Amino acid sequence: MSPRRPVIAFAMPDSVRHRVFPARSMEQYGAIAEVAGHLTEFDSAAARRVLDRVEVLITGWGAPRIDAALLDAAPRLEAVLHAAGTVKPYLDRVVVDRGVRVSSAAAANAVPVAEYAVAMIVLAGKRVLPIARRYRDLRTQFDIEAAFPEMGNHGKRIGIIGASKIGRIVIDMLKAYAFEVVVYDPYLDDAEAAVLGVASVSLDELLRTSDVVSVHAPSLPSTRDLVDARGIGLMRRGATLLNTARGELVDQEALTRRVVAGELFAILDVTVPWILEPDHPLYTAENALLTPHIAGSLGEELGRLSGAMLEELRRIARGEPLLHEIEPDLLAITA
Amino acid sequence: MSPRRPVIAFAMPDSVRHRVFPARSMEQYGAIAEVAGHLTEFDSAAARRVLDRVEVLITGWGAPRIDAALLDAAPRLEAVLHAAGTVKPYLDRVVVDRGVRVSSAAAANAVPVAEYAVAMIVLAGKRVLPIARRYRDLRTQFDIEAAFPEMGNHGKRIGIIGASKIGRIVIDMLKAYAFEVVVYDPYLDDAEAAVLGVASVSLDELLRTSDVVSVHAPSLPSTRDLVDARGIGLMRRGATLLNTARGELVDQEALTRRVVAGELFAILDVTVPWILEPDHPLYTAENALLTPHIAGSLGEELGRLSGAMLEELRRIARGEPLLHEIEPDLLAITA
Repeated sequence: MSPRRPVIAFAMPDSVRHRVFPARSMEQYGAIAEVAGHLTEFDSAAARRVLDRVEVLITGWGAPRIDAALLDAAPRLEAVLHAAGTVKPYLDRVVVDRGVRVSSAAAANAVPVAEYAVAMIVLAGKRVLPIARRYRDLRTQFDIEAAFPEMGNHGKRIGIIGASKIGRIVIDMLKAYAFEVVVYDPYLDDAEAAVLGVASVSLDELLRTSDVVSVHAPSLPSTRDLVDARGIGLMRRGATLLNTARGELVDQEALTRRVVAGELFAILDVTVPWILEPDHPLYTAENALLTPHIAGSLGEELGRLSGAMLEELRRIARGEPLLHEIEPDLLAITA
Repeated sequence: MSPRRPVIAFAMPDSVRHRVFPARSMEQYGAIAEVAGHLTEFDSAAARRVLDRVEVLITGWGAPRIDAALLDAAPRLEAVLHAAGTVKPYLDRVVVDRGVRVSSAAAANAVPVAEYAVAMIVLAGKRVLPIARRYRDLRTQFDIEAAFPEMGNHGKRIGIIGASKIGRIVIDMLKAYAFEVVVYDPYLDDAEAAVLGVASVSLDELLRTSDVVSVHAPSLPSTRDLVDARGIGLMRRGATLLNTARGELVDQEALTRRVVAGELFAILDVTVPWILEPDHPLYTAENALLTPHIAGSLGEELGRLSGAMLEELRRIARGEPLLHEIEPDLLAITA
């Protein structure tokens, strides 16, 4: 059976579309679908004419919200393909309730974050960045093992907070290393943990016993300060906290105090606020590395997002099930 | 058949023995073998008495050299287990020629170096360290993609120089990523490259087309300046040179010039000399990261070395073949 040629439209700010869907990517979409238009809003008469025909909406960061009114304006809409991670801010639950299939590039978006986290876990265990800093300061031979007695990854324990999409990729990637991996996730039962090949532990035990704690929980009202001041206090001297998720998950003040005191290491790709005030002590703390939210899809990583949704569009054209269809029930606990 | 209990002796400086074989490790050796003594030299009368009985020598960094005279003094010697990587400085070829089996922890020693290299390849592709430095300098939001347009690992090409033990582990680990991996190794034929799952290319092509070049060749007279000034000149703007092998393999002056000019990135765990002069421009170059030869077995990584040789000793006790026996012919091309 030859594939059908769905009528599609892109809905996101032009700046996002140009980054995520460069010319070469647009050609690939045009080869398998009829591109009815590029929308930045759903209300104008021009937009309405496109929506009247569209079968598949390709959305991205900053897309206009898809709600009941939009569904009324787009009677043929059968699928929304979101070329980014977090789908929740962009659509009402009514969309899936009315049978429109929704897929997102959350899995593809998770990959670079997981890769960043694994690389940082390895470097944290080896104390690479603090040693590099010390070497640059001293510029002479020094007793590295005396200065950093716990350096090395062999047999270290890694604590993963959140068996999320990203957390699961990290767990899987860590199997290539001689780590002991434990996980905390209130939604993960022991049978699922066994399938992942890790031990499920309480948050307190994870914080108390891990050499590196890596945060991969969703940011929800219920996860605010998930690692609170008491939890930070449980972490053992010399441990590293790695956060590539959201700054709100961690009590940043408590963490900062222990990092500045030289008791903990911190590798933070996310903070509160997003960009720290210029005089924040974490900028200069010897035990901290700050990056401005770069673990995820930026630069050439964006090709993963448009590529993943192109594959979903191919599946729609061929009448096949989507690879990453979002289950209505999951909308409640995924961010 | 119950295992025999070999007579063993440790031969290395006490300082090395204490680091690589802590008390817990010594207990494990004592449980499966008779420990006849701890030698730091082979010439004293006390050493001669131990050598007269020894069946297996456990050696390490700084061990006294094993030559024909030692073989005469140790008539029962059947195996040398070297709890470190490079075996060549510690024994004459006559040892293997006379049928003494030699094993080394080179495979175990390769693991942390490969892990360091893979972590750095991932971070280099994402421009993590230069971005962290820029963020720390600016302390404000900036257009990261405009400043680092090539950031991201998706689809990048990684060039591995040397399909050595370490190089092969790196190649294997990189399969978990969406990289294109090419390799240059004059000892690797196309069939072997196919088994490794990589394309074998010339050194020039590797240097000209790779986004990250990672050096894993042995340091031999014939590999001195393997990446010479002309080769450094071939590397494309924005590419990264990662060296965890030996500084002598790369023309450091040519590399430094292009790094300081902002054309290349360098991540160097090894340099010439070992510790750079305090005024060397690489210490402060924005595009460089220097670490003082820490990629390999230091700190808690040392447990891999004693553990690997304990496993070999177990195999001797059970009459099984060694896992990492060194072939006489390989002594010529391995460092």
